[in-house]
Amino acid sequence: MVQATPFLLVLFLALGAHGLSAKKVQSGWDAQGRVGCTGGCGCRLCCGTSAEFSPLQCNLVGRWVNDLGSNMTITSVNANGAFGGSYHTAVTATSNEIKVSPLQGSMQKSPNQKGQPTFGFTVNWKFSESVTVFTGQCFVDDDGKEVLKTMWLLRSHVEDIKNDWKATR
Amino acid sequence: MVQATPFLLVLFLALGAHGLSAKKVQSGWDAQGRVGCTGGCGCRLCCGTSAEFSPLQCNLVGRWVNDLGSNMTITSVNANGAFGGSYHTAVTATSNEIKVSPLQGSMQKSPNQKGQPTFGFTVNWKFSESVTVFTGQCFVDDDGKEVLKTMWLLRSHVEDIKNDWKATR
Amino acid sequence: MVQATPFLLVLFLALGAHGLSAKKVQSGWDAQGRVGCTGGCGCRLCCGTSAEFSPLQCNLVGRWVNDLGSNMTITSVNANGAFGGSYHTAVTATSNEIKVSPLQGSMQKSPNQKGQPTFGFTVNWKFSESVTVFTGQCFVDDDGKEVLKTMWLLRSHVEDIKNDWKATR
Amino acid sequence: MVQATPFLLVLFLALGAHGLSAKKVQSGWDAQGRVGCTGGCGCRLCCGTSAEFSPLQCNLVGRWVNDLGSNMTITSVNANGAFGGSYHTAVTATSNEIKVSPLQGSMQKSPNQKGQPTFGFTVNWKFSESVTVFTGQCFVDDDGKEVLKTMWLLRSHVEDIKNDWKATR
Repeated sequence: MVQATPFLLVLFLALGAHGLSAKKVQSGWDAQGRVGCTGGCGCRLCCGTSAEFSPLQCNLVGRWVNDLGSNMTITSVNANGAFGGSYHTAVTATSNEIKVSPLQGSMQKSPNQKGQPTFGFTVNWKFSESVTVFTGQCFVDDDGKEVLKTMWLLRSHVEDIKNDWKATR
Repeated sequence: MVQATPFLLVLFLALGAHGLSAKKVQSGWDAQGRVGCTGGCGCRLCCGTSAEFSPLQCNLVGRWVNDLGSNMTITSVNANGAFGGSYHTAVTATSNEIKVSPLQGSMQKSPNQKGQPTFGFTVNWKFSESVTVFTGQCFVDDDGKEVLKTMWLLRSHVEDIKNDWKATR
Repeated sequence: MVQATPFLLVLFLALGAHGLSAKKVQSGWDAQGRVGCTGGCGCRLCCGTSAEFSPLQCNLVGRWVNDLGSNMTITSVNANGAFGGSYHTAVTATSNEIKVSPLQGSMQKSPNQKGQPTFGFTVNWKFSESVTVFTGQCFVDDDGKEVLKTMWLLRSHVEDIKNDWKATR
Repeated sequence: MVQATPFLLVLFLALGAHGLSAKKVQSGWDAQGRVGCTGGCGCRLCCGTSAEFSPLQCNLVGRWVNDLGSNMTITSVNANGAFGGSYHTAVTATSNEIKVSPLQGSMQKSPNQKGQPTFGFTVNWKFSESVTVFTGQCFVDDDGKEVLKTMWLLRSHVEDIKNDWKATR
């Protein structure tokens, strides 16, 4: 269903503002173990024989690309669900040169999430006076591919509290 | 401009959905050193003699209460702007018992923020299958009081990607 | 911890972005008949003796002022719930001179709304290339005063569909 | 003004929550005369010889289908930009039977919109106690096809103003 391609396979989706879909970048080892869960014994995360294992498993760790061409890497999630990573945006509301920026976030670890966890994270932009928060859920779609569905808010710095009303888009 | 009150003075504000104001809980030492910057020598953060120092300084670290009665404590901010803390909400969209929940976030540290930094954080709810992201800015208002202006998105878990469209409020 | 002040002082409060509260402008006849519903026989809208009349009744028609100082007048609501009016904003994201602008909207007329109807409307700005949509509910608060709770989206014109992602705040 | 078209060509797009793309239902004459403006003399709206005519022209009037499968018909726009129509949603947050519902809106008519106007409208749901507002822009995409890019807020009725904070998604 999902072949492990050694190079990047990137699909861009049309989407509305403030809503984003991100697809996992499928490279060798990454796809094998997880995406679509057809990998036999290597399928650590999703294919338990026990009934309490969910057949679906979406794992935030990895590299993601969204419909605007932005790239995100989530490096690890700790036992409490806290995670870090980096975000390389393809678009900007400023004229500054884009730089890779760090992100800090947190995901739900409860079994009630049934392998499709909700999460949120903050990107601290290194080339502008803004931050963006994303929140969403990691899904396994009908084709067995992992996909993130997120919404975001971009907060710009304003000099005066009187301008607060227009600082978020 | 701002007197350091030894006890708490907490005002609740009416506000619209998705926009929140939080006021800092002002106790002895906390207000002295920082709020309004009238504290003389103790005014570590804001009162440099050099022109490049801003007269305003809003510090995220501390305890905050918002207009709905929710309490938040931010314990520390590291050199990169990452911070942690806890959130005790006064309202919930579920019928579960409310529990204090951890938060992970990040703030801008650049001098261009002029002492009124933008920030974002994620609350990982310990009593529901949801997360909330907040983003906003820490302001010093006309009375010299520190105030947070934030917006939030609450993401609920859904079983099926088909219901993603209604999972965020 | 919080000292009780003997008299209420109710003014307009600063509030977070995207959420707005509007209070009805209380002038002679306007307040008499409706606000707080203490007007005796004149209390046409709220004080029926029949059990099927709700004790609460918030009427969109009238003049409203919100926390940013903007003024809105809703002139009439037809049998289907469609309404028109005008909006005089106190704030703008442009440098153009502010002009009063028309609005078009619609409210729920069902008895299930129990006198506190939900509604939405569009403001077609006469001094900028933008529109704003508001949606909210007309409430009677604990003091018997009519109050609108709304959220809004401001849509700016962009030249190219590639910039759509940043056109809404 | 818009006649029933013999053949529907409907494309569904993946999209994030709160952001929607809608494609115009493209049939014979409809596409010929307007979309992409390749239709020669029939090209009433877009192909003036005068320089002040924009080469792009997106017309709200017509039938639209979005990525969730919802259908919308905008019947006419008056001289001030006010318009009406109907909305047949494919998804609902309630368990009620879906019914076609009326919409009221307004669009920018200024030449500065360059044929790609911004607009907003309110849908007054006939099967639930809610309203939805949409705002967006009508674009001509790179293939010359008319497309709407919108964002929305869904407002539910709540019994008590204390629950206002969670009434909008």
